[in-house]
Amino acid sequence: MTTSDETLSRSEEKLLELQTLLSEGDQEKVCEFFAEQNDTEIAHLLESFPASARERIWICVPEELKGEVLAEVGEEVRASLMSDMEAEAVSDLTRDLDAQDIAEILDTVEPSVKEAVIDNLDDSTREQVQVLHAYGDNTVGRYMDPNTVNVKEDVTLETVQRYIRIKGLLDERSQEFMVTDKENRLVGSLSLVDLVKNNQEAQVTEFMHQSVSLLDEMDVHEAAVVLRSKELRFVPVVNADGILVGQLNIDNIMEITREDADNTLLGMSRVSDDEELFAPVMTSAKSRGVWLGINLATAFLAAYVIGQFEAVLSQVVALAVLMPVVASMGGIAGSQTLTVIIRGLAMGQVGGNNRWWLFNKELWVGVLNGLVWAFVVGVIAQLWFDNWIVSLVITLAIVINMTVANVSGIAIPLILKRMKIDPALSGAVILTTVTDVVGFLSFLGLATVLILH
Amino acid sequence: MTTSDETLSRSEEKLLELQTLLSEGDQEKVCEFFAEQNDTEIAHLLESFPASARERIWICVPEELKGEVLAEVGEEVRASLMSDMEAEAVSDLTRDLDAQDIAEILDTVEPSVKEAVIDNLDDSTREQVQVLHAYGDNTVGRYMDPNTVNVKEDVTLETVQRYIRIKGLLDERSQEFMVTDKENRLVGSLSLVDLVKNNQEAQVTEFMHQSVSLLDEMDVHEAAVVLRSKELRFVPVVNADGILVGQLNIDNIMEITREDADNTLLGMSRVSDDEELFAPVMTSAKSRGVWLGINLATAFLAAYVIGQFEAVLSQVVALAVLMPVVASMGGIAGSQTLTVIIRGLAMGQVGGNNRWWLFNKELWVGVLNGLVWAFVVGVIAQLWFDNWIVSLVITLAIVINMTVANVSGIAIPLILKRMKIDPALSGAVILTTVTDVVGFLSFLGLATVLILH
Repeated sequence: MTTSDETLSRSEEKLLELQTLLSEGDQEKVCEFFAEQNDTEIAHLLESFPASARERIWICVPEELKGEVLAEVGEEVRASLMSDMEAEAVSDLTRDLDAQDIAEILDTVEPSVKEAVIDNLDDSTREQVQVLHAYGDNTVGRYMDPNTVNVKEDVTLETVQRYIRIKGLLDERSQEFMVTDKENRLVGSLSLVDLVKNNQEAQVTEFMHQSVSLLDEMDVHEAAVVLRSKELRFVPVVNADGILVGQLNIDNIMEITREDADNTLLGMSRVSDDEELFAPVMTSAKSRGVWLGINLATAFLAAYVIGQFEAVLSQVVALAVLMPVVASMGGIAGSQTLTVIIRGLAMGQVGGNNRWWLFNKELWVGVLNGLVWAFVVGVIAQLWFDNWIVSLVITLAIVINMTVANVSGIAIPLILKRMKIDPALSGAVILTTVTDVVGFLSFLGLATVLILH
Repeated sequence: MTTSDETLSRSEEKLLELQTLLSEGDQEKVCEFFAEQNDTEIAHLLESFPASARERIWICVPEELKGEVLAEVGEEVRASLMSDMEAEAVSDLTRDLDAQDIAEILDTVEPSVKEAVIDNLDDSTREQVQVLHAYGDNTVGRYMDPNTVNVKEDVTLETVQRYIRIKGLLDERSQEFMVTDKENRLVGSLSLVDLVKNNQEAQVTEFMHQSVSLLDEMDVHEAAVVLRSKELRFVPVVNADGILVGQLNIDNIMEITREDADNTLLGMSRVSDDEELFAPVMTSAKSRGVWLGINLATAFLAAYVIGQFEAVLSQVVALAVLMPVVASMGGIAGSQTLTVIIRGLAMGQVGGNNRWWLFNKELWVGVLNGLVWAFVVGVIAQLWFDNWIVSLVITLAIVINMTVANVSGIAIPLILKRMKIDPALSGAVILTTVTDVVGFLSFLGLATVLILH
């Protein structure tokens, strides 16, 4: 018997405790600490240390958890921990894992090691792993759990309960049983709750519900949007012939949801989605360098535009001083719209004729905010430089740039989506280029026309 | 008996179908369409239309689902749908809802309506709603489900199963039973899976597990980090005396997780977290205007810095042309670091002595990328303007700005966090200010020293 008096505390505290133990240098105490953590907590802690400290932590991870921990950490961390593992060691670690975890781990190792480990698996697990590996990277089939608990439709609830106990079929994450016919085609599903709460003499068919299902080849991110919009905790996965091949459950959906939110944030901030917090300096520098290079190209494009107006710039230095204000206001206005639209796209709220409504709306938000802030900027510029042509030019340029920014903020992601390019990834770069170029062009162009005639 | 042949399709298709029905103007068909949707789907569809179309949709929502739909839509949409509802109508809608949904809906209505509706509730629901309302906005208590299924520890599993069937206690989301003592103090919990899979003659105590619990006053975002890091699908909530007051389940955790990810993205793009995709033009313009105003202040600060160097700008116009390149490269480098650190903070991976490791890492990433890109920029500038002083100045300025940017990208969120300010919300604004000011100051300052002596 156990009593509970552990109240969960902030996750940072565990991290601090481990840091203290490591700095005291008492390896035995570190190992005692790990004996009390579960696989998810250990994976999280491993990801909270640089590679140099991970070795010292890894030797303290209990042998029986190492496989599950490897399946849970990010790919970069896994690769560093498994860098010189032999096939035999990998086989040992994966012995008690399910097919999903094994498939994930084997993605990281050398082809020769992978082959050897697969050969060592028992027949049913080997088959499941091969099924998972046969699916494309972003398909539902790749993320699904191939293990399902299947029952027949013409038995009583009591029979199902006895069958489960005899076979020891349920794991702690089970919540639904699949009802299938003789050909393993999906007929419906029965929830664990319905199994327990209803008259045990009743037939499965009475409480079975018509189960919506996913196609195994469907894009997993699309699928996550659908499942969230229906608040489903579980969904069966079938192939094109209607044969049950697995299930996607709430944990998979949550994982995909977090990945998607993460990728949007990273893409918009020009960070690669595989950058790990504690990656070595060289790895991070390289991965970020790619985006810095792309940004440099767009920055020089903006500079090139400015370069076309050297004549007016050398005559009125106030233009150089005020120039960044125009680009900055357009940049922010555009990125506000871009973010709102990318979110709407991710939630499946943008489509059909509401795109025109949104386009129209963003146009007017841009015009309205453009007018308001252009007026403010115009007044400040006039007080500062006392040059009404400069004030007029910046007022007009801000209205133009903020309107174009808002319109681009909706047009760019919609066009990218139609071209099947992830808007979160390249949307921000293209938008900044547009707002910089339009900002400098309108500001300095108008100045040239009005000042140099 | 039902058979399943519905395979889930892309969420956009449902939206397009409804749009077509609405444009055909056949209200009857629209209502037929809604008769087949569940509450979550209806809520999602309502959020996918501007307010003008929502009225036409709302009258087609089946009466018995309206309450649940209202509880699920975002606050802005709810407020617009409920704007002129009387207390009686609200009472009707909330009749069959659980306390969580009622509490949520009542947050939106006038105080007088709220009071009248609460008076109309049955005693136990009223008490639960009042308990929920007594908690602060971001506490676990506010988000928890106050309904739990409690069992005693000294009975057999069979007894529990019979008790559940007689009382009709389980709802479709149930997954765990609370084991409590006579004073309603939490002793442990028993999973539905364990209830079904084990020998029915056994006592609850045999399969009860030591249940970790959350304090009701804990910050709900902190709690979500902990629950995710443990992959818990459910956790009991207790008050300071150890009395069970409710439970947080996977749906709540998922909701909080999505809110958090959303707020980070919105904050970094300067969008208010209450901005709704289909908000009217004026509402969106106002809500974004606040951030545009803040940005304007920082843009003028940057302009002021440039204004200090009019002398050198009027002498060498190439400086005005190249100036934005320095600010832009610093801005991107800084926001890369900021994003990585904010994510790490959100996952509870940053704390204690690893902050110095990260600080050191970001410093070197900044120096390294600064050197590489400064060299590239220097070469391009030299080829373009053939002025070695300008090339030298921009090379130095980029190294300085990118290094400062990376260091600020980690220092700013850590300082904000210590000041208990959300780094995702103000981090980006402060960082842009720093990279603009440092960029212009170093570039034009060095130019002044080297060119004007």
